[in-house]
Amino acid sequence: MTISQYFPIYDQLDKADQERLDYAAVKRRVPKGTLLHGGDGVCTGLLVIASGQLRAHMISEEGREITLYRLFERDICLFSASCIMSSLQFDVFISAEKDTELWIIPPDFYKGLMERSAVVANYTSQIMASRFTDVMWLMDQVMWKSFDKRLAGFLLEESVLEETDTLKITHEKIASHMGTAREVVTRMLKYFQTEGLVRLSRGAVEILDRKGLSVLADT
Amino acid sequence: MTISQYFPIYDQLDKADQERLDYAAVKRRVPKGTLLHGGDGVCTGLLVIASGQLRAHMISEEGREITLYRLFERDICLFSASCIMSSLQFDVFISAEKDTELWIIPPDFYKGLMERSAVVANYTSQIMASRFTDVMWLMDQVMWKSFDKRLAGFLLEESVLEETDTLKITHEKIASHMGTAREVVTRMLKYFQTEGLVRLSRGAVEILDRKGLSVLADT
Repeated sequence: MTISQYFPIYDQLDKADQERLDYAAVKRRVPKGTLLHGGDGVCTGLLVIASGQLRAHMISEEGREITLYRLFERDICLFSASCIMSSLQFDVFISAEKDTELWIIPPDFYKGLMERSAVVANYTSQIMASRFTDVMWLMDQVMWKSFDKRLAGFLLEESVLEETDTLKITHEKIASHMGTAREVVTRMLKYFQTEGLVRLSRGAVEILDRKGLSVLADT
Repeated sequence: MTISQYFPIYDQLDKADQERLDYAAVKRRVPKGTLLHGGDGVCTGLLVIASGQLRAHMISEEGREITLYRLFERDICLFSASCIMSSLQFDVFISAEKDTELWIIPPDFYKGLMERSAVVANYTSQIMASRFTDVMWLMDQVMWKSFDKRLAGFLLEESVLEETDTLKITHEKIASHMGTAREVVTRMLKYFQTEGLVRLSRGAVEILDRKGLSVLADT
């Protein structure tokens, strides 16, 4: 397994840059739960995901969290290398939600590549545009969608990602994905339970009525 | 007045591209209130602002609005040319908040420029990164900041932009900047009035205690 198979524009680099990238990119395996980037001002580098799942989130001054987007196999994480772009004046946290294999491309090396290659520069714009689209979708959700619909959508998405109807997830954890307080999640989950949509137990939420949740999420 | 003075990387284009840009860019004067882009799927082009003020906003399915950011002299509006980037899957509305002079750079022309020039591609990334930073700031505000603080900040910002303490603005208009309902704005402004921060009259909000609003906005 080499980075050439996972970096989408590898074939468009010239031979010399391909060799430099092979040499510069560092392969890493990180266990679920690892904080890969954020909070300490370090410019980690671009992450190219071979397998696993990463989560990008922001944290309020009071320590509350919200998930901005997820990254999967063959996705590229740009914001862990925000130092390559002076106009990018915000920081996100990146952590592994599953055991993950990835390459880290050092920021200085990538910056050089981007400055001399229009292909790399345009590709970088496209990555940023994808993440911007994710964040605008989220903005739309938090601005205009009521919490019950967002929670229904979240449970369904989790169930797809984890490939199970029984989500092993605490109310606290759901709250940090959704940018709200635990009490708000608990209250809504209890309401979902009385409506027969889910069954609650310690540390788990079991989806009983997938269709009902879908209808709620989409309306 | 030519676009060479307002397009920041003009000097870094080669002679032929400079001439093509001079020829392709269309100068326009638009009165305050003009909707320049959005809603109809048309890819307007990049806007280079010579003078005036533009507002980028999003609209919910129910027609509610929120201001995403403002653009001023020498700013470049990229999202009115979102067709140049396939990963940019959202649309914003762009309107003139003041009488504005601008150039429109046709999207196809700019796309060609971007594809053959790393300088243009990287500059485009920087513009997008600036707007992304604006939106992340807003996300932070709507997620974690209470409405009273946001409103105090908004009134102060408006007063700077309009260079007056007496803002000629309706509660409805404030609501569409802030993504909320008119009633919410009215209630909070009345509270501000009882606290001696503002004085309300028909179609206007007069700032009485600038320092008090600042303290509220920053805490």
